[in-house]
Amino acid sequence: MHEVFERFAENPLLRPADVRPSAEGLRVECLLNPGAFRYAGKTWLLLRVAERPEQRPGRVSTPILDPDSPGGMRILEVSRDDPGLTASGDRGFVYRGTTYLTTLSHLRLASSQDGVRFQVEESPALVGSGELEAFGVEDCRVVEIAGTYYLTYSAVSFRGVGVGLASTRDWRRFARHGMILPPHNKDCAIFPEKVGGSYWCLHRPSGVGLGGNYIWVARSQDLVHWGDHRFLAATRPGKWDSERVGAGAAPIRTDRGWLEIYHGADHQGRYCLGALLLDLRDPSRVVARSEEPLFEPVAEYEKKGFVGSVVFTNGQVVDGDELTIYYGAADTVVCAARASVRAILETLR
Amino acid sequence: MHEVFERFAENPLLRPADVRPSAEGLRVECLLNPGAFRYAGKTWLLLRVAERPEQRPGRVSTPILDPDSPGGMRILEVSRDDPGLTASGDRGFVYRGTTYLTTLSHLRLASSQDGVRFQVEESPALVGSGELEAFGVEDCRVVEIAGTYYLTYSAVSFRGVGVGLASTRDWRRFARHGMILPPHNKDCAIFPEKVGGSYWCLHRPSGVGLGGNYIWVARSQDLVHWGDHRFLAATRPGKWDSERVGAGAAPIRTDRGWLEIYHGADHQGRYCLGALLLDLRDPSRVVARSEEPLFEPVAEYEKKGFVGSVVFTNGQVVDGDELTIYYGAADTVVCAARASVRAILETLR
Repeated sequence: MHEVFERFAENPLLRPADVRPSAEGLRVECLLNPGAFRYAGKTWLLLRVAERPEQRPGRVSTPILDPDSPGGMRILEVSRDDPGLTASGDRGFVYRGTTYLTTLSHLRLASSQDGVRFQVEESPALVGSGELEAFGVEDCRVVEIAGTYYLTYSAVSFRGVGVGLASTRDWRRFARHGMILPPHNKDCAIFPEKVGGSYWCLHRPSGVGLGGNYIWVARSQDLVHWGDHRFLAATRPGKWDSERVGAGAAPIRTDRGWLEIYHGADHQGRYCLGALLLDLRDPSRVVARSEEPLFEPVAEYEKKGFVGSVVFTNGQVVDGDELTIYYGAADTVVCAARASVRAILETLR
Repeated sequence: MHEVFERFAENPLLRPADVRPSAEGLRVECLLNPGAFRYAGKTWLLLRVAERPEQRPGRVSTPILDPDSPGGMRILEVSRDDPGLTASGDRGFVYRGTTYLTTLSHLRLASSQDGVRFQVEESPALVGSGELEAFGVEDCRVVEIAGTYYLTYSAVSFRGVGVGLASTRDWRRFARHGMILPPHNKDCAIFPEKVGGSYWCLHRPSGVGLGGNYIWVARSQDLVHWGDHRFLAATRPGKWDSERVGAGAAPIRTDRGWLEIYHGADHQGRYCLGALLLDLRDPSRVVARSEEPLFEPVAEYEKKGFVGSVVFTNGQVVDGDELTIYYGAADTVVCAARASVRAILETLR
C-alpha cells in the first residue's frame, strides 16, 4: 500500500450519538458516507443518517416511508421466530418474500469552519420521497456547477435501487429531478464541468448473468437525461477490488487527467479506496489505475462497527494540491483523511 | 385463457433452414424474436439469427465478435471435460470464470407482400459492433417516427446486457446512437409519438437484492438520452408472469389507452403473452392488466425447440382493428398470430 493518505488525528469526526434522530422512537444506528462541498465560506457534509427503532429482544424492526401512515412512516416489526422471516443480515432481511433494509437513511447537513469540527443540523435536509424512495436515500455525491449544487444519491425502495437527482442553490430549497439511472445502479458522480460539449458522469450498474459490478460513464446535455453509456472499469479477480467497484466523489481535474478516488470491495466485503486516472478529453478512456489500494480499513474505527472493515468515500474537498476525503468507517462513523494530489498521481505512473 | 389470438395456419413462417449463415463454418441454430414494420409497401421482419459452429461431440463452441480476429470473429471451443468449464446450459456456459452465450445473434431483414410468405435477405442488416456488442445484438424493436425507423435492441457482451439504439430511413444505411440504457436492461419499446411533450419508452431493468425483473418507463427529448425513470409493472407471485415481465413492440394508441402486449415468464421459464393498458396522457399509469395470459405456448412448435415452452413477441403490425404479432416460438422458429384490438381491450375491462 502507498502511504499517501494521512488520517485526521480527530477521527472519528462524527458518531451516531452526535445526531438527533429525525423522529420520536427512532435511534441513529449509523452515520456514514457523506457528500462534501464548500458553501458560504464553510465546509459542509451531507451525512447519511441511518435510523431504526430500538431493537427489542427476539424481534427485528425497521422504518419504511409511507405517505398513508401518520408522520409519513410506518414501522415493520417481525418476531425472529416468524416463519415468514427467511433471511436476516446486518444490512437487510427477507420477510414474506420481500427484501427490507434494516435501517432507513436520510441526508443531514453538517457545517464546519475548519473542516474538522462539524455542527450537525437538527433536522434532515433531504428525506426519501415517493414510491421509489420508500426505503430512503443514501450515499449522496455533491457537485457544484455554475453556482448550482447537484446531488446524486441512491434512491432505494421495493422497486430496486437507482440514482436520484436533486439540485439546490441555497441548501434550503431543493428541486427534484427524478430517477436519472434505473435499477440496479449506485455510486453516480457527475463531472464538475462539461467535457467535449457534454456533461459526464460515472455510475455503477450491475450485470445479471453477464458483466458485473463495474464502473461505467454516460453523457448528458441537461444532467437529467443520460445516454451513450460506456464501460469504464471492471472488478479484478484476485485483487482488493475483485467483487465490486464504484466511483467516489466528482473527478478532480489535473494536468495528467481526471483523477477519481473509487472504492473496491473484495469477496469478503472488505472495502478499500484506490484511484483511476481518466483521459482529460475522453473520460471514457482509463489512463492509469491503482494496482494496490491507496487506503485500507486498518484503524480500529474502520475495522469494527455496524459492518466492519469498510472505508467508503463519496465526499471530498480540494484545496490546491491538498485533497481531503470524508469517509464512512465501518458503516458507523464519519472520518477524514488528507493526501497530496501530486502524491496520488505519482502512484499512478 | 381468453382466445383472442388466432395462429397463422402457415406457422412456422420461418425456420433456421430458411436462412443462409452469415459466415462459413457457422450454422443457424435459432431464428427468433423479430422486430416488424411496414416499409415501401411491404411487411418486413428484422429477424434475430442465432448462430454457432457445428457442435463437435464432447465439445462446446461459440462465436465471439473480435475486431482483432480475421473476419472480425473468433471461435471459442472448449472440451466438456475441461475443468475450466464450470457451468453449461442451453443459453450459456461459464468458462474460466467468464460467462459466454452458446450462440451469437445478428439481425437479418425479411420482406413479404402478404405478411405470410417472407423472403429472407442473404446477409445481415445489423451485426454487433464494438466492445459492448461482442456477444451480438438481439430482440430488436422497431418504431417509425416521422419517416425514421428507430431500432432498440439488446447489446450483449462480457460487460453485460444493455439497450442499444440505431436508426435508419432507408434500411440500408444505419446510424448508431450508442447504448441508451446501461446493464442490466432489455425489452426497450419506444412509443410511436410524443406524449405530453416527451418521447417515452418501456424498458426492463433488473433489480439486485431489491426489486426484480420489472417493466419501467422513461422519458427523453431526443431518443438518445433518457431520464425520469419510473416503475410501471412488477412480476406477480403465483401467476404466469411471476419471474420476469418485459415489453413487446411499441405501444398501440387506442381510445382507451396505450395497449402494450408484453411477455411474462414463470419460475419454470414458460413464456406467455398478456396485455397492459396505460393511461393515454400519462403512460406511467397502468389502467388495466391481463389477469390470465392472452397467448400461451401450446402448439407443438411452441413447446419444443432450442428452449421449449416459449412464445415471445417484439414485433407487430396493426391494420385498423387487426393486430398481427410476429413471435419467436421455442426460441427456434418465427410464427405469427392475429387478434382484434377491440377484442383484446374487451379482456381488459
